[in-house]
Amino acid sequence: MTAAAGLNAQQVTEYLDEVWPGVTSSMTIEEVADRRARLRMHVDENGLRPGGIVSGPVLMSLADSAVWAAIIGVLGDAAMAVTVTLTIHFLRPAPPGDVVAEAQLHRVGRRLATGDVLVYADGQDEPVALATVTYALPT
Amino acid sequence: MTAAAGLNAQQVTEYLDEVWPGVTSSMTIEEVADRRARLRMHVDENGLRPGGIVSGPVLMSLADSAVWAAIIGVLGDAAMAVTVTLTIHFLRPAPPGDVVAEAQLHRVGRRLATGDVLVYADGQDEPVALATVTYALPT
Amino acid sequence: MTAAAGLNAQQVTEYLDEVWPGVTSSMTIEEVADRRARLRMHVDENGLRPGGIVSGPVLMSLADSAVWAAIIGVLGDAAMAVTVTLTIHFLRPAPPGDVVAEAQLHRVGRRLATGDVLVYADGQDEPVALATVTYALPT
Amino acid sequence: MTAAAGLNAQQVTEYLDEVWPGVTSSMTIEEVADRRARLRMHVDENGLRPGGIVSGPVLMSLADSAVWAAIIGVLGDAAMAVTVTLTIHFLRPAPPGDVVAEAQLHRVGRRLATGDVLVYADGQDEPVALATVTYALPT
Repeated sequence: MTAAAGLNAQQVTEYLDEVWPGVTSSMTIEEVADRRARLRMHVDENGLRPGGIVSGPVLMSLADSAVWAAIIGVLGDAAMAVTVTLTIHFLRPAPPGDVVAEAQLHRVGRRLATGDVLVYADGQDEPVALATVTYALPT
Repeated sequence: MTAAAGLNAQQVTEYLDEVWPGVTSSMTIEEVADRRARLRMHVDENGLRPGGIVSGPVLMSLADSAVWAAIIGVLGDAAMAVTVTLTIHFLRPAPPGDVVAEAQLHRVGRRLATGDVLVYADGQDEPVALATVTYALPT
Repeated sequence: MTAAAGLNAQQVTEYLDEVWPGVTSSMTIEEVADRRARLRMHVDENGLRPGGIVSGPVLMSLADSAVWAAIIGVLGDAAMAVTVTLTIHFLRPAPPGDVVAEAQLHRVGRRLATGDVLVYADGQDEPVALATVTYALPT
Repeated sequence: MTAAAGLNAQQVTEYLDEVWPGVTSSMTIEEVADRRARLRMHVDENGLRPGGIVSGPVLMSLADSAVWAAIIGVLGDAAMAVTVTLTIHFLRPAPPGDVVAEAQLHRVGRRLATGDVLVYADGQDEPVALATVTYALPT
């Protein structure tokens, strides 16, 4: 369960830019360490739903990516990891602006990796969403 | 548990266009009836992930919308309904092209509505994703 | 995606009795065919929660077993299959008496199998619970 | 989001014993504070599945109860709170013995409360299960 690869945020960003050009244009990988990752996304009006709050799919996408980044931080090469299942709870409306996801892996096995994510509107104490995500790992 | 409002696909489309201009530009609401809804989305290269398959957030967004459309079909006015929780299982890669979501509501209560969704790549028999979604209803 | 083994309800019951003596004492496997399984459980006062309704863990256990039975119906030998994740939505209170779970598999892959389940109070049209379950398969 | 009632572990135990006699016989509520709860359950051979590991429904039941206890700690009177949805990920086999659940609430609203839970085999560092649970609150 140790971080054999131990990539940091910059290394994960470079890796993702290589395997999926453009994917990091909408998100900043702020920190990756110790089976954790923190990602930040700026949400403008294109990412809002009626009522002027951040839309669900935007938060889901950020949560999904945060777990992916944490996995890459541990395994190094995991471009072909795919999401098996994602559960998200929307807890509070998120206003436009930055949203920040903090992912933590609770298991990185041979075939599956599972983590949870709390998503915050920047500067707020209470999360706007809670997610759990399982990835299938390439073998 | 009856469909008091009983909006059809065209009426749900007009309603959504009114409350959320542009939301139906990316999806076609093909059928709404009897606590069910079928939505179709054309996915081009912007909606793909590495490997050339439809990305997870695109499928989540479609599944979420399909349950929303079914709820509006039953209740009529439910613009302020918000997703409480969504669970999605990704079953198979979806190739670029059309994806079709078939949602069915299993409970429309006073405060919550819950449904499940199967998402298909157009023309295939086996689903690419399975989702369950709960909305909180305006009171 | 075909049922190579194609065990029927009686064969699945005999198989389970062998690998897990007693597991079928609380449930009857009524039907197994075509990636589906229907299980029945009689719930007496030990399985109730305050308010006199069937407790959540009882319904979860039944839903979990129904997917397992469907998998064994397809694969034959799957005693070592283990639940990876289970999501359950409780839709309505279930009165004491029989509850019936109807599981359908939507994917049986090499490593994972995923299905959904509707649970009914015997004789009612509307489900009391909706679940999705993913198992990891022995390799 | 403050703990208006602020019951501690002993008060929650007494409350549960009153509304659901016997429910605490299988679990010990070790700590309740600050929207958190820690519950311990001793699992003997009746709670095992083939392979000699703690069965899924036992872990689900414990996770569900841990969130319930945390809610009662905040709200005081919440016997009529009911689980709306529960998602559980099974991460590692749990050997027979004590299992400990640590629940944390991330939202206690007027109508819904949501928390997550990590379940540990006693004395181990890595969790055996991860769950998220949403309760509907009495109004």
